Amino acid sequence: MGFFSKDIKTMDDLFVHTLRDIYYAEKQIVQALPEMVHKSSDPQLKQGFRAHLGETKNHVTRLEQVFKLHGQQTSLVDCPAIDGIIDETVEVVGEVEDKSVLDAALIAAAQAVEHYEITRYGSLIAWAKQLGRDDCAALLQQNLEEEKAADKKLTAMAESKLNRRAA
Amino acid sequence: MGFFSKDIKTMDDLFVHTLRDIYYAEKQIVQALPEMVHKSSDPQLKQGFRAHLGETKNHVTRLEQVFKLHGQQTSLVDCPAIDGIIDETVEVVGEVEDKSVLDAALIAAAQAVEHYEITRYGSLIAWAKQLGRDDCAALLQQNLEEEKAADKKLTAMAESKLNRRAA
Repeated sequence: MGFFSKDIKTMDDLFVHTLRDIYYAEKQIVQALPEMVHKSSDPQLKQGFRAHLGETKNHVTRLEQVFKLHGQQTSLVDCPAIDGIIDETVEVVGEVEDKSVLDAALIAAAQAVEHYEITRYGSLIAWAKQLGRDDCAALLQQNLEEEKAADKKLTAMAESKLNRRAA
Repeated sequence: MGFFSKDIKTMDDLFVHTLRDIYYAEKQIVQALPEMVHKSSDPQLKQGFRAHLGETKNHVTRLEQVFKLHGQQTSLVDCPAIDGIIDETVEVVGEVEDKSVLDAALIAAAQAVEHYEITRYGSLIAWAKQLGRDDCAALLQQNLEEEKAADKKLTAMAESKLNRRAA
């Protein structure tokens, strides 16, 4: 980002900037998920986080393909939003002792992450289509679908047993 | 939050902590929206942000009612997530010169805020029900419905004209 000029001049610039933002976010999530696997108690939740770590690594790879298709070098920009969401998770989780309450807190934290990704992929897909990059949009759509599915699984787990156990 | 003890012991504590988090977030959004009204160019978008500022003020009032119903003093905790989302908005928006691209960026930023609120209200409502607080859940549900409607309106505006104008 320049100190003397405004660096986002076109829709294409905004698309690439946001691509770098979500690329940073996905990489941070790859770092954060093993701790969520470790902290969770319910076996199904633990397995869910483990499976999502695998998916997240695939999301990173798909984003690298999008950079390549769009003729851009893979790079990232700091994403204060995901940093804030992860900081908040670490803070809240550090305050919880009871294992069932901790599982409920971890699910809520993971859903905040999913929702951040869902909104960013939504914007990126719409912009890619406007820019005539249906090839990029299709890859981003695959990531979006997996984030939405992960969010739904977390809701189902919370509502079917984990919240009840914690209450 | 204590330095020597874990302060979230029960589901009720987690509920109250998250209520304080979203209360802080809603108040930050009340502060941020006038700048988004100011920065936006499209009259429909400007009016949308203005209307959502009114709704957000009502959300703050409803949260105060939830605190009261639940026998808790109204208070807030820092919410690094919403701070990060707002910081990122300020940063990106400061980089954009073209008015149409700026409108597209503002919509994406506002949708990131909406999605954060949607996920937090989703967890709070589920927990309120588990805690037998259907009265609190009903008020939180009203806020959730308005956030979801705001998000949908933004998508419709982006897809119907603003992204096309920016591309």
